[in-house]
Amino acid sequence: MKVHLECIPCLLRQALEATKISTTNEIMREVALREVTIYLSNEQWAKILPELGTNVHRIVKRVTGNTDPYNQLKQKSNYMALELYPKLETIVENSEDPLLAAAKIAIAGNVIDFGPKVDINLEKEIEDVLSNELAINDIDQLKESILGSRKVLYLADNAGETIFDRILLEELLKQDVEVTYAVKDAPILNDATFQDAETAGITKIASVISIGTDCMGMLFRECSTKFLKEFENSNFVISKGQGNYESLNDIQHKEVFFLLKVKCPIIAEDIGVETGSAILKRTCIC
Amino acid sequence: MKVHLECIPCLLRQALEATKISTTNEIMREVALREVTIYLSNEQWAKILPELGTNVHRIVKRVTGNTDPYNQLKQKSNYMALELYPKLETIVENSEDPLLAAAKIAIAGNVIDFGPKVDINLEKEIEDVLSNELAINDIDQLKESILGSRKVLYLADNAGETIFDRILLEELLKQDVEVTYAVKDAPILNDATFQDAETAGITKIASVISIGTDCMGMLFRECSTKFLKEFENSNFVISKGQGNYESLNDIQHKEVFFLLKVKCPIIAEDIGVETGSAILKRTCIC
Repeated sequence: MKVHLECIPCLLRQALEATKISTTNEIMREVALREVTIYLSNEQWAKILPELGTNVHRIVKRVTGNTDPYNQLKQKSNYMALELYPKLETIVENSEDPLLAAAKIAIAGNVIDFGPKVDINLEKEIEDVLSNELAINDIDQLKESILGSRKVLYLADNAGETIFDRILLEELLKQDVEVTYAVKDAPILNDATFQDAETAGITKIASVISIGTDCMGMLFRECSTKFLKEFENSNFVISKGQGNYESLNDIQHKEVFFLLKVKCPIIAEDIGVETGSAILKRTCIC
Repeated sequence: MKVHLECIPCLLRQALEATKISTTNEIMREVALREVTIYLSNEQWAKILPELGTNVHRIVKRVTGNTDPYNQLKQKSNYMALELYPKLETIVENSEDPLLAAAKIAIAGNVIDFGPKVDINLEKEIEDVLSNELAINDIDQLKESILGSRKVLYLADNAGETIFDRILLEELLKQDVEVTYAVKDAPILNDATFQDAETAGITKIASVISIGTDCMGMLFRECSTKFLKEFENSNFVISKGQGNYESLNDIQHKEVFFLLKVKCPIIAEDIGVETGSAILKRTCIC
C-alpha cells in the first residue's frame, strides 16, 4: 500500500511516541523528532508505507541509542497473553468450528499494537471478536487452501500476539501442514522476534525463521535469501497485522490470507470496512 | 506557552486537515503538506506555539491559493449558533446568576473549533457546561474586576462562537463597562473576522476592532498600534480559546480572564485540569 498524505502526520506521531518511550532526555527526544521531520520532508512519499515507517523507527533507535525501546511493553504483552493462554485453548476445544475460533483468536491478538494505539483490553477484545461475525470472513477459502497444501508460511506481527498465533498454529498443524513462523531479525516497534516466538512456545511446535531484517511489515529487498525461498516455496501465506498488509496487499503471485484488526482509517478504506473491523481476507489474483 | 514536542505532529495533522479543506487537488495537497514538513524541520521549536501555527496555516493558504479555506465551515457555525441564540438569551434571563450563565455560554461556544477537532454537538455542549461546575471558576474575581473597570478588551476566537460571545458581551454592557471586541484582520483557520462579528450583531452593541493581523492566537509583534493601545488601555482582558491562551498565559502586566474549553492534553497539563474541561481562569501577577 502506498503512503497516503494521512500517513505523514501519523508517522511523526509514532516517532514522538517512540522517542518518549526510548529516552527521558528531552533534548535527545527533540533531536530524534527533528531528524524524523527532516527525513519525512526529504523523502519521496511515493513508496510503500513500511519503507518510511522502518526508517522513522530506525532514526529514533539511532539517535536515542535505545535499540529496543518497546522491550518492556513487549514483555508485558507476552505476560498478559500467556496468562490468557489456557482460556484460549479451552475456547477452541469447545468450539464447533475450531479453525474459525482459532483464527478469530489470532485476529483478536492483533489488537496488541503500540504503533497506532497504546491502551488495550485483551479479554474484552477476544470476547468481541469471538461473539461477532468477521467483517470479511474467508475461512472457507482458508480451509480449502489447507487441504491442497503442504507448506504454510505464517508472518508474525507483534510480541504477545505470538501467543494468540500459537493457538492458530496448533489448529493448522492438526491439518497435516508444515508451518513456518516468520519473525523479525531484530527489534522494531513491538514486533515479534525469535525470543517472543520462544516465549510463546512456538519454537517447540513449528519452524521459526527470521525474515532477515528489522523492517516494519515486510520489505522484500531487505529480507534474507533463506526467508525469500521460504516465501516462494510456501503454498500460501498467513499474514498478521497492518504492517504486513501494507507490504503485501498488492502481491499477485501468491495466495495470502490477511488476518488483522483494522486500526487505521486509510487501511479501512482500502479494504472497504470500518475502522475496528476484524478480518480474515484472502488475496490472490493467481 | 512554548511549543512542546507533542505540538509538532499535531501541527502537521492540522496542516493536513487544512490542505484537504483548501483544495481537492491531490498534488497541491502534497506540495502544501511537504512544505509544512520542511518548515517544521527547519524552524526553531523554542517559540510560542501560535508562531509556528500561524506560519503553518499561511503556508497552506499560499500553496493552495485558498485564502479562506474554512469559509464554508465558518458560515455553517454562524448559522448553527444564530439558530440557538434566542434559547441562549432565555437561559441567561432565567438564571439566578446571569453573568455566570453568560460566561458559561461563552465558554461552551468555544467548542466550535476546527483546529483540533471537527465534530461538535453544540446543544449538548451547552447543556454540559451549564449543568456542571467549571473546572476553574474565577467568576467572583471577574465580578470584582468589572466593578473597578471602565474599559474591557474581549479577544474573540472562532466564528460562530461570536454569537455565544454576544451573550456575555450583553451582560458585561449591563454593568456599565465599555467593551471592545477584537477579531482577526483576515481569515486564519476558523477564527472570527469583522464579518463574523457583524453576523453575530456585535457591531451594533460594541466597538469591534481588528488586531491588525491574521495570526493564530495573538502575536503582539504583528498587531497594529491601534490594537496594542487598546490592549494597554483596557482595565482587563477577556481571552477566548486555546490560541489566545497559548499566546497570553505568561503575560504578567495585565489582568486576563481566560475562558475556554480545554481540547489539548498539553494545555490541560499546563493549566492543571482534565482535557475537555471548561474554565474561567484569571491570570495576573500585577
